[in-house]
Amino acid sequence: MPLSDMSLAHLRAYAPQREEPADFDEFWATTLEQARAHEGAAVFTPHDAGLVTVEVYDVTFPGFAGDPIKGWFLVPAGATAAGRRLPAVVTYIGYGGGRALPHDWLLLPSAGYATLVMDTRGQGSGFQFGDTPDDPHGPIDPAYPGVMTRGVRDPRSYYYRRLMTDAARAVDAARAHPLVDPDRVAVAGASQGGGLALAAAGLVPDVAAALIDVPFLCHWRRALDVSDAFPYQELVSYLRIQRDRVEETFATLSYVDGVNHAARARATALFSVALMDSVCPPSTVFAAYHHYAGDKDISVWPYNGHEGGQTHQAREQLAFLARTLGS
Amino acid sequence: MPLSDMSLAHLRAYAPQREEPADFDEFWATTLEQARAHEGAAVFTPHDAGLVTVEVYDVTFPGFAGDPIKGWFLVPAGATAAGRRLPAVVTYIGYGGGRALPHDWLLLPSAGYATLVMDTRGQGSGFQFGDTPDDPHGPIDPAYPGVMTRGVRDPRSYYYRRLMTDAARAVDAARAHPLVDPDRVAVAGASQGGGLALAAAGLVPDVAAALIDVPFLCHWRRALDVSDAFPYQELVSYLRIQRDRVEETFATLSYVDGVNHAARARATALFSVALMDSVCPPSTVFAAYHHYAGDKDISVWPYNGHEGGQTHQAREQLAFLARTLGS
Amino acid sequence: MPLSDMSLAHLRAYAPQREEPADFDEFWATTLEQARAHEGAAVFTPHDAGLVTVEVYDVTFPGFAGDPIKGWFLVPAGATAAGRRLPAVVTYIGYGGGRALPHDWLLLPSAGYATLVMDTRGQGSGFQFGDTPDDPHGPIDPAYPGVMTRGVRDPRSYYYRRLMTDAARAVDAARAHPLVDPDRVAVAGASQGGGLALAAAGLVPDVAAALIDVPFLCHWRRALDVSDAFPYQELVSYLRIQRDRVEETFATLSYVDGVNHAARARATALFSVALMDSVCPPSTVFAAYHHYAGDKDISVWPYNGHEGGQTHQAREQLAFLARTLGS
Amino acid sequence: MPLSDMSLAHLRAYAPQREEPADFDEFWATTLEQARAHEGAAVFTPHDAGLVTVEVYDVTFPGFAGDPIKGWFLVPAGATAAGRRLPAVVTYIGYGGGRALPHDWLLLPSAGYATLVMDTRGQGSGFQFGDTPDDPHGPIDPAYPGVMTRGVRDPRSYYYRRLMTDAARAVDAARAHPLVDPDRVAVAGASQGGGLALAAAGLVPDVAAALIDVPFLCHWRRALDVSDAFPYQELVSYLRIQRDRVEETFATLSYVDGVNHAARARATALFSVALMDSVCPPSTVFAAYHHYAGDKDISVWPYNGHEGGQTHQAREQLAFLARTLGS
Amino acid sequence: MPLSDMSLAHLRAYAPQREEPADFDEFWATTLEQARAHEGAAVFTPHDAGLVTVEVYDVTFPGFAGDPIKGWFLVPAGATAAGRRLPAVVTYIGYGGGRALPHDWLLLPSAGYATLVMDTRGQGSGFQFGDTPDDPHGPIDPAYPGVMTRGVRDPRSYYYRRLMTDAARAVDAARAHPLVDPDRVAVAGASQGGGLALAAAGLVPDVAAALIDVPFLCHWRRALDVSDAFPYQELVSYLRIQRDRVEETFATLSYVDGVNHAARARATALFSVALMDSVCPPSTVFAAYHHYAGDKDISVWPYNGHEGGQTHQAREQLAFLARTLGS
Amino acid sequence: MPLSDMSLAHLRAYAPQREEPADFDEFWATTLEQARAHEGAAVFTPHDAGLVTVEVYDVTFPGFAGDPIKGWFLVPAGATAAGRRLPAVVTYIGYGGGRALPHDWLLLPSAGYATLVMDTRGQGSGFQFGDTPDDPHGPIDPAYPGVMTRGVRDPRSYYYRRLMTDAARAVDAARAHPLVDPDRVAVAGASQGGGLALAAAGLVPDVAAALIDVPFLCHWRRALDVSDAFPYQELVSYLRIQRDRVEETFATLSYVDGVNHAARARATALFSVALMDSVCPPSTVFAAYHHYAGDKDISVWPYNGHEGGQTHQAREQLAFLARTLGS
Repeated sequence: MPLSDMSLAHLRAYAPQREEPADFDEFWATTLEQARAHEGAAVFTPHDAGLVTVEVYDVTFPGFAGDPIKGWFLVPAGATAAGRRLPAVVTYIGYGGGRALPHDWLLLPSAGYATLVMDTRGQGSGFQFGDTPDDPHGPIDPAYPGVMTRGVRDPRSYYYRRLMTDAARAVDAARAHPLVDPDRVAVAGASQGGGLALAAAGLVPDVAAALIDVPFLCHWRRALDVSDAFPYQELVSYLRIQRDRVEETFATLSYVDGVNHAARARATALFSVALMDSVCPPSTVFAAYHHYAGDKDISVWPYNGHEGGQTHQAREQLAFLARTLGS
Repeated sequence: MPLSDMSLAHLRAYAPQREEPADFDEFWATTLEQARAHEGAAVFTPHDAGLVTVEVYDVTFPGFAGDPIKGWFLVPAGATAAGRRLPAVVTYIGYGGGRALPHDWLLLPSAGYATLVMDTRGQGSGFQFGDTPDDPHGPIDPAYPGVMTRGVRDPRSYYYRRLMTDAARAVDAARAHPLVDPDRVAVAGASQGGGLALAAAGLVPDVAAALIDVPFLCHWRRALDVSDAFPYQELVSYLRIQRDRVEETFATLSYVDGVNHAARARATALFSVALMDSVCPPSTVFAAYHHYAGDKDISVWPYNGHEGGQTHQAREQLAFLARTLGS
Repeated sequence: MPLSDMSLAHLRAYAPQREEPADFDEFWATTLEQARAHEGAAVFTPHDAGLVTVEVYDVTFPGFAGDPIKGWFLVPAGATAAGRRLPAVVTYIGYGGGRALPHDWLLLPSAGYATLVMDTRGQGSGFQFGDTPDDPHGPIDPAYPGVMTRGVRDPRSYYYRRLMTDAARAVDAARAHPLVDPDRVAVAGASQGGGLALAAAGLVPDVAAALIDVPFLCHWRRALDVSDAFPYQELVSYLRIQRDRVEETFATLSYVDGVNHAARARATALFSVALMDSVCPPSTVFAAYHHYAGDKDISVWPYNGHEGGQTHQAREQLAFLARTLGS
Repeated sequence: MPLSDMSLAHLRAYAPQREEPADFDEFWATTLEQARAHEGAAVFTPHDAGLVTVEVYDVTFPGFAGDPIKGWFLVPAGATAAGRRLPAVVTYIGYGGGRALPHDWLLLPSAGYATLVMDTRGQGSGFQFGDTPDDPHGPIDPAYPGVMTRGVRDPRSYYYRRLMTDAARAVDAARAHPLVDPDRVAVAGASQGGGLALAAAGLVPDVAAALIDVPFLCHWRRALDVSDAFPYQELVSYLRIQRDRVEETFATLSYVDGVNHAARARATALFSVALMDSVCPPSTVFAAYHHYAGDKDISVWPYNGHEGGQTHQAREQLAFLARTLGS
Repeated sequence: MPLSDMSLAHLRAYAPQREEPADFDEFWATTLEQARAHEGAAVFTPHDAGLVTVEVYDVTFPGFAGDPIKGWFLVPAGATAAGRRLPAVVTYIGYGGGRALPHDWLLLPSAGYATLVMDTRGQGSGFQFGDTPDDPHGPIDPAYPGVMTRGVRDPRSYYYRRLMTDAARAVDAARAHPLVDPDRVAVAGASQGGGLALAAAGLVPDVAAALIDVPFLCHWRRALDVSDAFPYQELVSYLRIQRDRVEETFATLSYVDGVNHAARARATALFSVALMDSVCPPSTVFAAYHHYAGDKDISVWPYNGHEGGQTHQAREQLAFLARTLGS
Repeated sequence: MPLSDMSLAHLRAYAPQREEPADFDEFWATTLEQARAHEGAAVFTPHDAGLVTVEVYDVTFPGFAGDPIKGWFLVPAGATAAGRRLPAVVTYIGYGGGRALPHDWLLLPSAGYATLVMDTRGQGSGFQFGDTPDDPHGPIDPAYPGVMTRGVRDPRSYYYRRLMTDAARAVDAARAHPLVDPDRVAVAGASQGGGLALAAAGLVPDVAAALIDVPFLCHWRRALDVSDAFPYQELVSYLRIQRDRVEETFATLSYVDGVNHAARARATALFSVALMDSVCPPSTVFAAYHHYAGDKDISVWPYNGHEGGQTHQAREQLAFLARTLGS
C-alpha cells in the first residue's frame, strides 16, 4: 500500500504519550554545560569557492567535548563589507551526508540569510562527503555506513548525544559571528537534519525559528515497528541479534527522542511530512509535531515519499523565513 | 557485476563506426531553417523568486515550429543595472524533468554566468516539474511517463527532433539577450541534458564550450543491448511488442544519435562518464566522446553510477568554464 | 500481506460515497453528441487471417472527434452467407494493449458471437500491439508508456474522455453492422477493458449485458492510496512532482470514474474481482459494483492477483452470455 | 545487461559438442517399446465446451507405463460429419501448465487443424490447470511446484523420461484418430512444450513438421551456468544442497537433452529464439538448432524475453503449417 | 511495515475458533493404528562421523505405511557403555531440509540428551540434504521443491498425513531404544519441525515435553491471507490456478492443522514466536499456542523474522529441558 | 548469470600480480612487535554453558594495543583432568558476527580439538552477537553495521590492522594454554573468518594448518569491480562519495590484502571456493590461492553461492585436520 502509515485523519489526531526519562533535562543540561566549558571559539577562514554572489568561509567550531566540527559559512557578497547584521540559518544534514562543497548550499545565502552548514561527525560518506571525524583522537574518519547503534548501550556514550550537542553548539557558533543577528537565528534541516533542528530547538529554546522537514530521530519505538527502511532498520537489525538488549536500547533512545525535544522547544516552526514516507513514517512526525510546544504549522505532502516537498517546500520555507525572521 | 559495461582499458579504445543516415545534415539544416523561420522572439519577464543575489526572468522562447518553450533566465544581482555582457550557459535537463523553480538553478549564476534553463516539452512530471506542453495545440501537457517512443515511426514526427530543435533555439534565445556575450556561450547538461548539450553543440557549432555529463541519447543500438534501466528500456519495451518495427525504429534514432551530432561539434568540451552507470552505459558515452570533433577532455568516475561526479564534477566544471569562457 | 486490500466481509459492505461533479451528465451528453455529429460510418473490410472457422473484417470506425479507430470484427464462418442477426460483444483491451492480430480474439466468435474488438488509441505498445494513434493529426502513435496523465489538467483534454467516447462509439459501430442484433449487444473487457465496458454501459445504457472483469478506472482517490502498482502509480508519480495540482487532478478524474458510470448503467452485468489484486484493488471494484444500477453479480477469486479468474471466468462468461443474450 | 547470453553473431556460430550417453538410442527404444506394449487405446469423448465453430473431445490416451494421460481434441465444426482426414498438430504445454479448458486452445482448430493438446502429468497447477497425476497409483496429483528433480538420481526414474514418453505416445494417439491424416502430423510447443516437441520429433522421426518455440530442456550444463531463472534454477538449487550428486545428475539429464533428440529428428522445423530470454538462454536454443538434423529455420526476436514472438510467431507458424502440411 | 501481523497486544488475545473436521480423531487413530501394524522395528547402526564426544548411529525406522525412514541417533560418548537410560529429544526439521550429517546435530547430545533426528521424506534438497524418499516404491527421491500440495485433494493422500505419521512413529522408535527413558522424551523442532513437534505432541499425548519454535502448519486459512512468503505461498499459488478446489483444499488441511493437534496435546511446552516473521505469521502461532492444552510458555522475539530466537532460544531450551526432563 | 565470475577454466589459470607496498613486512613486523609488547596474558575462566560433553572457558586475551579481546575456549570433557596436550584450532568469524554462545561452537571440540573462538572487535551485531568493543577506551561497542571503511585513510588507523593483529595474537593466546600442543595449531574461518585465517597464517607462519573457506579481504581492486554485494560494496559506496580518495584507499587496503598475506604463509592449507559466490567472487579467492606459499588444496563448489560447502566442507575439514594435525 503506498500510504506508509495511518490515514491523514488518524495522523491529525495522533499524539502518543511521551517515553521520557525522569532525568532528561538534567542529562542535557549537564551535557551542554560540559561542552560549553571547553575552551576555544569558532574559526571562520575565507575560502575561494569560485563563486561571485556569495562569500564563503571554512568553519571550525567546538562541538561535543570541544571536538573540532567543520562547516561552511556563507553570506551574500558584500555582507562583510556592509557589516550589517543578517538573519541566519543553521543547517543540519541528512543521514550519511557531510558538508560537501560550498556551492552545494546556495539557496539560503542567495535569499539573504547568513548560513552556517554543520558537518556531520563520522558520517559524510553516504550521499555527500564530509570532513569531520567522530572521535578526533581516534581512527573513526567519516566512513560508510552506520552510526545508529554506535555506543547505544549507554546514553552517555551514544553517538547522537555527541551529534545533538554539536547541533546546539553550532547555534552558539553562528550567534557569535559578527554578521549574525543572534535574535534572528533559525535552525533547519530535513530527515536527520530535521531531527537535529528539532533537538537544537529544544536544547537552545530561544532560537527564533525552526524548519523541520520529514524529521528523523522521533518516536523510536513506533518507528521500528513501522519503517521498513534504513536507517531505522539499523536498530531493528541490531536488536534482531542483540536480543537481550531491547529495553536497554530504548532507554538510551529516550534521551535523544525528538518527541521529547519538541516538548521543550519555543521557536516558531514549520514542519513538513509526506504520507508515503516509509523512511520517517508520518506517525512519528506527527507525534513530534503534536508535542511541539512552540507556534507551529505543517506542510502535508500526500503523494510523496521521503523526498517530501523538495522545491515546493523550499518555496514555502523562503516565505516562512521572510515572515518570521524578516529579510 | 558493479561495472556496468567494458573495462576502462577497453572503453578508452572503443570507437565504433557511426550509424549515420546519408541525409543527416540536410534533415537538420531543413529542420532548423523551418524553426528559425517562425516569427517571434524570446520574451524575458522579471520574476520575484524571493532571492537577493540573483535576478530572475521568466522566459518564453520559440522552439520547434515556433512552439512557446518556457525557461528561466538568471543573472547575478546588479547585472542588468551594470549592463556588462556576461558569459552564458544554456542548461538542459535530465529525462522527466522540467524547469521547476528559479531557486533550483543557483550554481551557475552564483558563479557569474548568465544562465538560461530550458524547460523540457512534454516532460516535467518525472523528477522536477515543468510547464511546457509538447504540442501547444493539443492535449499533451507535461505528463508522466514516457516520450522515448513518441512519434518514433518517422524521424520527422519523432519527439527528439522537436526537443533537439528547442535546444538549438535556446542557444539563439540566450545569444539574443543584451546581457549575453554571444561569443562566450556554453551548452550544458547531464543525462538527457547532456545529450541535448551534445546535440546543440552539433547543431550550433559555434558555441564556445560544452559540458556533457553522463550523456543519454547516444549509440542507441548498443545502449539497448547493454542498459537494463529506463529510459533506454522504454525502447526495448516498445520493440518487444512492435516486433515488425525494429529497423524502422533504428532508422529514426540515427537522426538523433549523439554520436552523429558529436562528429559535427566544434566547441571545447568537458565530458564525464561513470563506470558503474547502467542508465547511460560508459561504452555509449565513449562512443560519442571518441567521435567528438572539438577539443575535449573527460572525467572518469570509476565507482559511480548514473549520478556521476555530482559536486566534484561541478567543481571541475566551474574551473573549466573559468578557463574556457573567462569570467 | 497477500490480501491487497480489505477482507471479503468488509468489501461486501463497502459502498463509499461517489465523488461526482454536478455537470457529469451534461459533460458526457455534450461529448457524445459532438462525437456522433461527425460524419462517416464504420468500414468493415474482409481480411485474410489464415483462419477457417471464423470470418474476419478489418474495421475502422469514427471515435472521439470522428478520429478513425481501428478494430477487428469476427463472426463464425458462414455468418455473412447466412445473414442471420447474431448477438454481439464489443470488447475493450487492458492498459497498454492494442488490437494485435485477429487470431488473438477467437473465444467469442467461436462461441457464436459477433465480436468487435476496439483498438486502444495511443496505446498498443505495452503488451500487445495496436495501430491507432491518439491524435491522428499529430505525432502520437501507439507508444510506450503512459497515458494516465495525458491532458489531465482539464477533463476536456484528458485522454480518457477520448477513449471512453471511442468505447461508446464502438457500440454504435457494432449495432450498425447488418449481422448484429442491436438489442443483443454486450460490452466486455478486463482491467482497463473492464473500466471501458463500465463506461460504455453507463454512456450507452441500453446495451443488454456487460462483462466487467477486475475493472480499472474506478474510485481513483482510494486507488492511489491502496495500489502500489502501475498504472495507478502513474498518477501517484505525477502528483509526487506536480504537488500543486492534486485537487485539479481529482476534479478531472471524477468525470471518468467508473463508480459514476456505474450509477447510470442498466445492462445486466457480471463483474469479477480478485482479492490479491494490487493493480485494481478490490475495494475500488466493489465501490463500482455496489453503485452499479443494473442487475448484477460478481465472481470473487480469493487467491488471485490481477489475472483474476482467467479461463474459469471465461467459462462463467460463456454461460452468462448464453443466458443473457441467447445464442 | 538485457542481452541474456551471447551476441547474435556468436550464437549463429555456437554448436557445442553433444554430451550424449552411449546407450541413448537403446534407452529410448526400450522405453518406447515398453510403453507401446501396454494395452489400451486413446479414448475420445465428445465434450460440450459451449463453442459452435469447433468440435471438442475429452481425450484419455495411454502414456508412459500405459498411464492414462488426459488431453483435448479439437477439430473444426463439421469435420466429424465430413469425415475428411485433416492435417493435425499435437501440442505440448509449458512448465507448470495443464490442459485447462478447451476454449484455451482455439487457434489451431480455427485454422483448420485437428489439434490434440496433451495434458502434463503432475504439473497443471503453475499457470493453467491440469488433470493428470504423475503416478496414477499414488498420491501425486497435479501439484505446485517443481518436477525438475523428481527421480533425477537415475534416468529410468527421472520425471522427464515419463513425460517425453507421453509426448511420443500422444503422436501415436493423434495418428490413430480417423479424422487425422497420419502423414501430416506436426508437433508443437513453447518452452517446456518446445522441448517436448523436440523430443517427440526425435523419438517419432516420421512426423512431418515441428514448431519449437524458445525450447526448454536443452544443453543443460550451459543452461545451469547461464539461466538465473526458474525452472532451470530448480536444478541449481538441488545441486547447491546435493553437492555429492553433480555428475550423477548430469548423467541423467543427458538422456533427456533436447540437443541429443535434435540430432535424431527429421521433421521440417520452425524454431524460435529470443535474445533477452533468461529462462531458456539463446545459446541453449541455438545448440539444439544447430544439431537439429531435419530441414529447419529459426525466428530470432532480438528484444524479447521468454515470451518470444507471441502473436507474431503464431502468424509465422500458421504460414509455415500451411506450406508444410497443406491445409 | 516490519511487523508482519497484529500488534503483540492483539496477538495475546487472539484465539480464533478451530476449523476442525468431525472425524479428526478417528482419522488419526486409524492412520496411526495402520502405521503401527506394519512389521519391523527401528534399526540403529553405529556410524563413524569423526567425532569423539558423541556416539552416532545411522537409523532406519518404519514410518507411515511402514516406509523406511532415515535418521541419526546421537548420545554422549560412553552412554552405550554406561547403559544408563537418558532423557531424549526427537527432533524434526524445517521445510526443505533433511538429516544432513551427524555433525550438524551436536547441541542436544552435547547437553546430555539422547537425540533422534528424523529425516524428512521427499524433502532434503532445499537447505540441507536428506536421504528418505517419499514413496519408497516409486521415483520420488528427495527433490527440490515443493510438497505443500502433494496429494492435497484428499486428506488420505496428502503428504502431511504421511509426514506427521512418521513424526509420531519416530517417538515410538526413540522410546524403543534401550538407552532412552520412555517417560522423559521430548519432541522438538522449528518451523516445519515445530509443526511436526506439535503434531507429535497431539498424536502421542504422553510425551513429556515439546519445544515448538516458530511453528509452521498452523491455522492455514489465515496463514494464506497473511504470509507473503514460501512455503505457505505454495498453497496460494496452487489455489490461484486450481480455482475450483478452494474448499476441498481447506477440508484436507483441517486434518493436519497444528491448531487442532494443539488441542489434544498434554506435554509441557515451550513455544517461540517472532513478531516480524512473515513466513509463519505470529497470529498463526498464537492461534496454536492459545489452543494448546498442556502447560505452556512462549518466548516472544519482537525484532526477529523467521529465524526467531536462534542461539538465545537454544539457551532457553537447554534450561527448559533441564527443568522438565532432568538431565 | 548464476556464475558470478570467470569460468572454472579461467579461474584455474588466474594469478594476477600482487599489489603490495614495499614496506608490507616492516609494517606488520612493527605492528606485531608493538602488540606483543603489551603486558598481560590470556585469561581462561570456567563457564557453565549447560553442556556435558565439552568443557567451556570464557576467554579474554590481549589483542592490538593490548586491548582485551573476548573469546570462548572449548575442550572435550575430561581434557583438563587428563592433562594431555591437544591439537587446537583458532577460529575466526564472518563479517558482522561475534562469539555468541559456547553452544554455537561444538563441531571442533566434539571432534577432539581444543578450540579458541575469537570474538570480533566492534562487530557482533550483524548475524550473531559479540561482546568486544573496537576501542575499549571509547564508545564503540559492537554495533550494526559497517567497519569496512573505519579509519581507511591511513593503514595505521585502518580497522583491519587492528583485527588482523587480534587474529595473530589469538594464536599466541591458544599456544600459551597448557592443554594446547603449540606445534599442532590450525587457524580457520569462512568469509571474513577465512580472510583472518589467511592473515594469521601469513603473520604467524609456523602454524601447522589453515582452513580458509570462501575468504573475504582478498584482491580488493578486482573485488570492487566484480562483487555486487556487501560488504565489499561498503567500499564502493564510500568511493562513490569520497571520489578524491580512490588511490589513498587502495594504498591502505594493500596492507591488509589476503593475497599478500598468502605469499608469506607456510601452513598446509585447505581452501574452498564457490563459483556462484557474488560476495567473495571466485577470482579473488583463486588470486589468494595461487599466491599461497604453503602446501595447499582447494574444494570447488560449482553450484553454491557464498554459503560454500557447508556441511560437506565440514566433513572434508575434519578429514583434513585428522591428516594434518593428528587427533
